[in-house]
Amino acid sequence: MSDDERAIREVIATWMRSTAEGDGRTVLGLMADDAVFLVPGKPPFGKEVFEAAAGAPPPPFRVEGESNVREVHVSGDWAWCRTELRVVTTPLDGGEPTRRSGHTLSIFQRLPDGRWVLARDANLLAPEG
Amino acid sequence: MSDDERAIREVIATWMRSTAEGDGRTVLGLMADDAVFLVPGKPPFGKEVFEAAAGAPPPPFRVEGESNVREVHVSGDWAWCRTELRVVTTPLDGGEPTRRSGHTLSIFQRLPDGRWVLARDANLLAPEG
Repeated sequence: MSDDERAIREVIATWMRSTAEGDGRTVLGLMADDAVFLVPGKPPFGKEVFEAAAGAPPPPFRVEGESNVREVHVSGDWAWCRTELRVVTTPLDGGEPTRRSGHTLSIFQRLPDGRWVLARDANLLAPEG
Repeated sequence: MSDDERAIREVIATWMRSTAEGDGRTVLGLMADDAVFLVPGKPPFGKEVFEAAAGAPPPPFRVEGESNVREVHVSGDWAWCRTELRVVTTPLDGGEPTRRSGHTLSIFQRLPDGRWVLARDANLLAPEG
């Protein structure tokens, strides 16, 4: 595994861990300023959604994810990655957790300072049947 | 616009046109042998699904799409592309057409012979509300 691939996998692992810990500031640092997020049935959105969440009171639920990186391909200062993802959202008031799973296809970009950040993300997660 | 970007846009245009014409053989030539297709709520699938469709009798509906390429980024022999897509499926028996729209995030690969082909595709289309 190349250093670049290792760095990209570390970005994904940090993202998952920080999300579970409610550490939105760290998540913000893992994405490009012009990042674009795609989910089914909604218009694309950008970093501003994560900025709003990071500045808001913590949500009334816990988000825990498990990611299985299926492939990473690096070409110059760009890379793409396919990940299998499972996310469990648990209401803090004791309600039933909801589970979503599926794949993501993501584009990573190497910044001039050498850090890899998420630039584009297609999230195809769907509720588990 | 670079020659590579032009070539990738031409692959997308040919894909849409050939799909509308029911020309599955041409579509097969536009994808990598190990292409992976991601859609919400289903396991990933590969070229074999398109091979089966190309060898089968024509389906009882017409598929027409309109694509708006929003961005193409080339890095070496790889490229990624985000497209806004609208697909109308019309039953040939006169039934009501169904409309789906949304974005795709796709990875293209330059083959040793110089041709660009689709390698990975995340399709986030959802029924229009």
